[in-house]
Amino acid sequence: MLVQCVPNFSEGRDSAVIEELAASMRGRRGAALVDYSADPEHHRSVFTLVGTPEPVLAAVLDAARVALARVDLTRHQGAHPRIGALDVLPFVPLADCPSAVCVDLALRAGRAIGDLGIPVFLYEDAATRPGRRNLADVRRGGFEQLAAGPLTGERAPDFGPPAVHPTAGATAVGARGPLTAFNVLLDSADLDLGRDLARRIRGAAGGLPGVKALAILVGGRVQVSLNLTRPDLTPPHAALEWLRREAAARGAAVAESELIGTLRLEELLAAAREYLGLGELRRGQVLDLWAAALAPATVLGSDEDAEG
Amino acid sequence: MLVQCVPNFSEGRDSAVIEELAASMRGRRGAALVDYSADPEHHRSVFTLVGTPEPVLAAVLDAARVALARVDLTRHQGAHPRIGALDVLPFVPLADCPSAVCVDLALRAGRAIGDLGIPVFLYEDAATRPGRRNLADVRRGGFEQLAAGPLTGERAPDFGPPAVHPTAGATAVGARGPLTAFNVLLDSADLDLGRDLARRIRGAAGGLPGVKALAILVGGRVQVSLNLTRPDLTPPHAALEWLRREAAARGAAVAESELIGTLRLEELLAAAREYLGLGELRRGQVLDLWAAALAPATVLGSDEDAEG
Repeated sequence: MLVQCVPNFSEGRDSAVIEELAASMRGRRGAALVDYSADPEHHRSVFTLVGTPEPVLAAVLDAARVALARVDLTRHQGAHPRIGALDVLPFVPLADCPSAVCVDLALRAGRAIGDLGIPVFLYEDAATRPGRRNLADVRRGGFEQLAAGPLTGERAPDFGPPAVHPTAGATAVGARGPLTAFNVLLDSADLDLGRDLARRIRGAAGGLPGVKALAILVGGRVQVSLNLTRPDLTPPHAALEWLRREAAARGAAVAESELIGTLRLEELLAAAREYLGLGELRRGQVLDLWAAALAPATVLGSDEDAEG
Repeated sequence: MLVQCVPNFSEGRDSAVIEELAASMRGRRGAALVDYSADPEHHRSVFTLVGTPEPVLAAVLDAARVALARVDLTRHQGAHPRIGALDVLPFVPLADCPSAVCVDLALRAGRAIGDLGIPVFLYEDAATRPGRRNLADVRRGGFEQLAAGPLTGERAPDFGPPAVHPTAGATAVGARGPLTAFNVLLDSADLDLGRDLARRIRGAAGGLPGVKALAILVGGRVQVSLNLTRPDLTPPHAALEWLRREAAARGAAVAESELIGTLRLEELLAAAREYLGLGELRRGQVLDLWAAALAPATVLGSDEDAEG
């Protein structure tokens, strides 16, 4: 029974804090810190854990305590919406793990984080109110709006006190399906163009299935930041080709792209089938998958692949 | 200590025999039959085993006995050069396995196959003579030329009798590095064009590093059949882009491509970096690799991924 957990922290600049967060999640049997990356522009870091439920839960709760001690949201400025030091904490089922396992993990993590004095809002499959399913709704207005008044009534958290923590803010804890975070940078400073592309590629607007998108300026260029929630229907290459085509129609071009965190092998296979013209390509044809299963220590032996 | 073994059999049409070969290599602890495919045009099937040395050796020797009993080379016609029922048997080190482990496996497999009454020629890293390093030299003239006279003197095999087996021929057993078998089909029937492209893409002719190539007609179209022996330097996408460019310059185009057997994750990552414009993409970002290591049964549990 494997789950993935992807804690997002509002710290993307202080490498000492980022390494302290990483260290708190390492070295547990049954849970691997598989990747992490920090973005100074977004002032944000994203970690990915994979493992069985109990060690994964223990790891992220240790990390939540580090964030509480070391991240001060009142001094945080960044391009990305956020409500807390540990901003978002989603649990994702892998392979044939039932979604209910991740809902249970979200509830237990939420209760423990609430006990640290941090209000917790449950979202997506763990949401207790329809208006909180969507993470964007939970985070709307960010830390500043949550801090502007008491968290009572409609604003009451699922766990924790009825007011934001003065430095750690609040945390959104959820259970959800896959999400591939894929950013596409355009060779353009035209934020209106970026916003138009983001608006039209969104699945909710009749664009590509399962795509969430927003446009921001990063280093003077437009970045279309994509969340692919149905990578089986819209893998990265499909979203990229849409953006290449639509940007070209507006006289712009894609400069480069970046993957934040992890993706599934099937997304790479889909890209290879498309670009290499392969009629057939099966996951079983990837040697490393078999080598990982036959000699797990070659993968789990160290965290060397997780480069911050 | 993991090795890969890629037995090639001169049977690509009789599915009962192909399934019998597959069955003989399945169900061993420590060795997985990870892929196999049969090509009726080439009248050839290629199997890939991954595992620790002893169970892999046991599996391929069982398969060698099936081929001896069930494949009659005197009735074999196909587009591909071949000398035996079990035509080629290479052992390949994986991860940090030393090459010497595979040389030892080749010697032991060669001796056992020789004891079945089949002459064995050792090639590449297991070769005992300089003129036998190159598999193409070992197979030149095929079964028919080996059968034309006694295998003595310069023609003497490394193991087995001094004459081809009447139905099973001879076998080339070797130890070598990685090899990705990647076929590119052109929308052209011009075999001269194909031969020119194959000649120029070859690494030995100053083309792309580690590329071996030959051109044949398959179903009336030109197929450039590539062996990529340095996929770290020339991954499939690099060879394909070369062929796309050079074919276009001659008024032809690539129609489709196919991967025979396996490839390494790094080759998919290289293609994704190139085509998705990703500045960085690490193997640790592929979730399935971690899931395979944390829950090996999800990969090894069945041979379902190996579809003939």
